[in-house]
Formats: sequence, structure tokens, C-alpha cells
Amino acid sequence: MAISLNLDSFEQISALAAKLPKTDTVAADAARARQSQLTKPPGSLGRLEDLAIFMAGWQATERPKIETAQALVFAGNHGVCAQGVNPFPQEVTAQMVLNFQSGGAAINQLCAVSGAELSVIALDLERPTADFTQGAAMTEQECLGAMHRGAKVVDPNADVLVLGEMGIGNSTVAAALSHAAFKGQAIDWVGAGTGTSPEGMAHKAEVVAKGIKMHRDAQGLAQLAALGGREQAAICGAILAARMARIPVLLDGFICTAAAAPLFVSDPAFLDHCLIGHASREPGHQKLCYAMGKEPILFLDMALGEGSGAALALSILRGALACHNGMATFAEAGVSGS
Amino acid sequence: MAISLNLDSFEQISALAAKLPKTDTVAADAARARQSQLTKPPGSLGRLEDLAIFMAGWQATERPKIETAQALVFAGNHGVCAQGVNPFPQEVTAQMVLNFQSGGAAINQLCAVSGAELSVIALDLERPTADFTQGAAMTEQECLGAMHRGAKVVDPNADVLVLGEMGIGNSTVAAALSHAAFKGQAIDWVGAGTGTSPEGMAHKAEVVAKGIKMHRDAQGLAQLAALGGREQAAICGAILAARMARIPVLLDGFICTAAAAPLFVSDPAFLDHCLIGHASREPGHQKLCYAMGKEPILFLDMALGEGSGAALALSILRGALACHNGMATFAEAGVSGS
Repeated sequence: MAISLNLDSFEQISALAAKLPKTDTVAADAARARQSQLTKPPGSLGRLEDLAIFMAGWQATERPKIETAQALVFAGNHGVCAQGVNPFPQEVTAQMVLNFQSGGAAINQLCAVSGAELSVIALDLERPTADFTQGAAMTEQECLGAMHRGAKVVDPNADVLVLGEMGIGNSTVAAALSHAAFKGQAIDWVGAGTGTSPEGMAHKAEVVAKGIKMHRDAQGLAQLAALGGREQAAICGAILAARMARIPVLLDGFICTAAAAPLFVSDPAFLDHCLIGHASREPGHQKLCYAMGKEPILFLDMALGEGSGAALALSILRGALACHNGMATFAEAGVSGS
Repeated sequence: MAISLNLDSFEQISALAAKLPKTDTVAADAARARQSQLTKPPGSLGRLEDLAIFMAGWQATERPKIETAQALVFAGNHGVCAQGVNPFPQEVTAQMVLNFQSGGAAINQLCAVSGAELSVIALDLERPTADFTQGAAMTEQECLGAMHRGAKVVDPNADVLVLGEMGIGNSTVAAALSHAAFKGQAIDWVGAGTGTSPEGMAHKAEVVAKGIKMHRDAQGLAQLAALGGREQAAICGAILAARMARIPVLLDGFICTAAAAPLFVSDPAFLDHCLIGHASREPGHQKLCYAMGKEPILFLDMALGEGSGAALALSILRGALACHNGMATFAEAGVSGS
């Protein structure tokens, strides 16, 4: 059964912000109190302690768990590829989806290692969104449709949701969404993506600047429709569905974080249940994390997408909960406090 | 059967440097070539690619594996605790060893998550080493004995070795070993440890400075005997035994890295097969990693020891090898290159 969530209009989604489930501070406080009793110097598990308390708040229990970890990878194609922003041909998106389905991609291996159940959702790959330098990439209805497709595949019983994406050209889309959300100059948000040369990056920045100029009046979710692709919209839909079911989310890197930027612009609280799995090598990602006030979990100089960094971070999250739930307290172990 | 390794004198160990097994560059090059054919933009797995190639070189195969991961935690007590450098009583070392043995510590949970087989080796806890502000902590023979005990427990069939430690007072020992190896001021290497106050840290720095002044003529492994504890010596022994069997090593954080500093001072090549699992919150650790030219894998603001950061990093290493071995090549998957 899908999670109940009304995605009929952007206006309705914006109004949702006030009614979102919030972190359970009683459960989070109980988890924090438990951490202080475990057999370790106070605070010595660092980020692991924060992660356990975060999970406790969203799962609304002192003892959060990860039995079912769901990983969703959304794939889409982008009209802006007509501007020559990517060295790979657009067919690669569909080829990589086949690779995901036959188990040959990085995300397959990483989900196996961290124990996540992977589903890949190809979104109308044969029908790219419109070129955002020529007009809106999607209409509001198209965008809502893709958000709905993202929302409906979220497993309501998942204990955590790993989100990833695939789409040739989507580092340009991510740069545009970031630039629209957090201003600055286009070049601030542009990186090498799958392997663009310095000249190619200058061109990417021009393409992004052109798109932003054309859609300068778009705000919040209208930025998602104007500049985003279907995989970005599906990620936003999945984030909202997870929130309704109090499922904590592990976003991947640059593309995934940028996909969520229109939600953040509408209301930062939309992303309160989201963690960022890793810091991408893409230069825009660090700025994006800073602008959103979120510290990535891993720093591994990766820039692949697919959810690869989020899947790796799932192992860290498992470690955090294993310590939280499995460690003895000072009293239980008969260890002297300081 | 234990790994054959002659630890009869410091002089003999120093002479070993020239005869150590080296990384297999043919296997590493083959692994690097394989990485370039996998279905991802070149270099996009970042650190994971480096780790796979590193493992290939030390395991001397294009396709390195982790079937058996061994974790060793060495525990010792330190005479320098007489100087009041730690807020916890020294009995906590033995209490924590019991906690390890009954499965209640962080390292137990983290080894379970990352699939490492944990052994805890308590080294004469009832007999602390001598106070290094009054004389040498150990004689050469005592130090060699502890090195031997570390070396002999290394499983020659392990595919990777995770090293950790426990010992009340050993962040002071780590600061002293770091200061002896890499100079600077004592305060550069002193941190809060298990929870020392700012005043306590100033006192720790004075104690370290006093020890360094007393043992200023000690070089290389003589620094280990003068300032180290049995767990530091055992770590050095385990590092050497692992090297003889070409087993890559994951060092934990500050204490573990500092334990290896006397080997590094003797010859940096002694540590060529060692990775640093995580960057400790202890301020001295970052300087130590920089001085040794090694970039930690994880940055999680932890400062617990026990091997906790190294055990977490093992999951990242597993992810790296899963991608390396399990991903399809562009040719296999029918994905177009750029």
C-alpha cells in the first residue's frame, strides 16, 4: 500500500509544510540519555551518536532500528543535452538502467554490502524533458506526475530510504537547480560531471546562466518544473512520501541534494528528515550542503551518483545503531565512570 | 601457525626494512586498468578506486578479496598515570577488557556490522609500564616481548587486519610518541583524550614535555620502549607480522597511528601496507596523518579508540572491493564510453 500523500498542485505541496510529521523530541532525548550511559567517554562516538539520536527522533523510539533499508534509483533524460553539455551520449541512461537491472553497476554492489534492497525506476527515458534554455523543462502537471511516481514506490515499512539517480546531463540540471535556489554565479555550481573539460565547464555555466535568466521568476517547486528532470521530481516525491511515514532519508551527493533544493527553498523543514550520505567531489556540492546546513557523512572524493555515496553511508548508519542498541551501559558492564 | 618474524633486537628490526615484502606493482597496475573499464566515469569512485588498487598491490592479485577480516584490540596500563593525566581510574582498562569479552563495547558492535573477527589481548594489566617521566617505560627486552605478543596473534590467513587499543592514559603516551617522532611542541600533540579539561590538557603537555626531555636521545624503536606501553609495542609487532604475510592493515585513530610512529621514524616504508581508518577528533591526529603522508578514510568526529574507526572503515573497504570485483565493464554491459 502506498503512503497517502496529496500531490495535486504545487500550492497544495507548499501548504503541506505546516502539517508535516516532526521529529519526536521525547524519543530523541531518551536516545541522547542512553548514549550518555553507554560504556565510552561522553561524545566519543562523535557523528555516530548524532546519527543514532536523529534516527530515534524520526522513528519515534529510543531504540531505532534498520531491518528494511530501501534504495531507490530514479533515471531520466534531459532536453538540455541538446546544448552539448555532456561527453557521454544520452543513450547511456537507458544502458545504465539495464546495467542496474542486471546487477553490474556500482550501486548494485554497494547495496549488497550495506544490505539495501534496490529498485530502479526509469522515467520515460525515450521522452526527455524539454530543453530548459528554450522553455520550462516540464509543465506543473508533468512535474507532479513524476513526483507522484517517486512517492508511490516508497515502501511504507522501510526503516530508512536511500535515494539515488542516473541521467546523462543531470549535473547541468543540478547546477541550474542549485543556482536558482542559492544564487551566486552559474560557474559556482558547475563541475566536471562525468568528465567535462575546462572549456566544457565554461560552456555548461553559460547554458545554466541562460536557463536561470529565462526562468528567473520561478520560485520553489516552480524551479523544479522549470529546470529539473523527472528523476529530480521523483526524488522530491519520494522525500515527501518518506516524511509522511517518518522514514529517515539518505540523500546521495550533488545531483540528489540539488534535486531537493526546490523543497528546501519552499521550506527548509521539508528536509528535516534527510541526511546527506557523502560529500561529492563536484565543487557545487559543498556549497549546497553549507547552504542547507547539512554536514555529509562521508568524504570519499566520489562523484558517481546512482546513490553510491548514500548506500555506503548506510553502513555507517548501521554502525551507529548497532552501538546505540548493542553496547552495555556503565552500570550493566560494571565499568567505573570518570 | 604464527608468521615467521625475527624480533630479537631493535637493531634486527631496523635492518628488516630493506627486506620487507613490497606492493606488487603488476597486480596494482592490472587493478588500475580494470577500474578504467568498469561502468562508471573514470575516477568517479574516488577513494574507493584507490583502496581497491592498494588492496590489489598488497594481496598481489588483480582481484583482491576480504573473506577473513581479523580485528585485534591490545590493552595495556601505563605508569605515567601516576602523574594524574586521566580522569578515569586505571582499573577501567581491565573493566573494559571484560566488556569487550562479554560483547558490550562499541568495537563488538562495529566488528559485527563490518564482519570482522575480534580478539582482545590484555597485556599484563596488573603490571603497568614504568612512568616515563621517571625513566624508560620499558626495557628493550620488555618492549620486544610485547611486540612478539602482538605479532604472534596475527592470523596468517587474514585478508585484512584491523588494529585497535585500550589503555587508560594512552592518549598521553600517544602525544609523547608523536612529539618524539615529529617534534613541534608538546601541546601540539595533546588533546582531551577521554575527557580532560583545558587545565588537565596543560598538565598533560607538561608531563609529555618532561618525558621527551628525559628521553631526548632515544630514536626510532628506542622511543617506543622509552615512552610507549605494551599495547603500542604489540601494535608495532602486529604491523610487522602483517607485512611479512602481505596483509593490509587498517589502523584506527590517534593512539594507533602514534603507536606506529616509532616504526615510521625507523623507516617510513614499514607502514606502506597500512591505511588509517578514520581521522580522530584528537587534534594531534591530523598532524600525525599529515606527517606520515596518509589520508584517513573516515571523518566522523570520533575519539573512542578500541579500533572503532578502523572497524567502520572496513565497511568502506568492502564496498571498494565489491565494486572492483562485481561491476560490469563497459564491454560486458554494452554501455557506450565517452
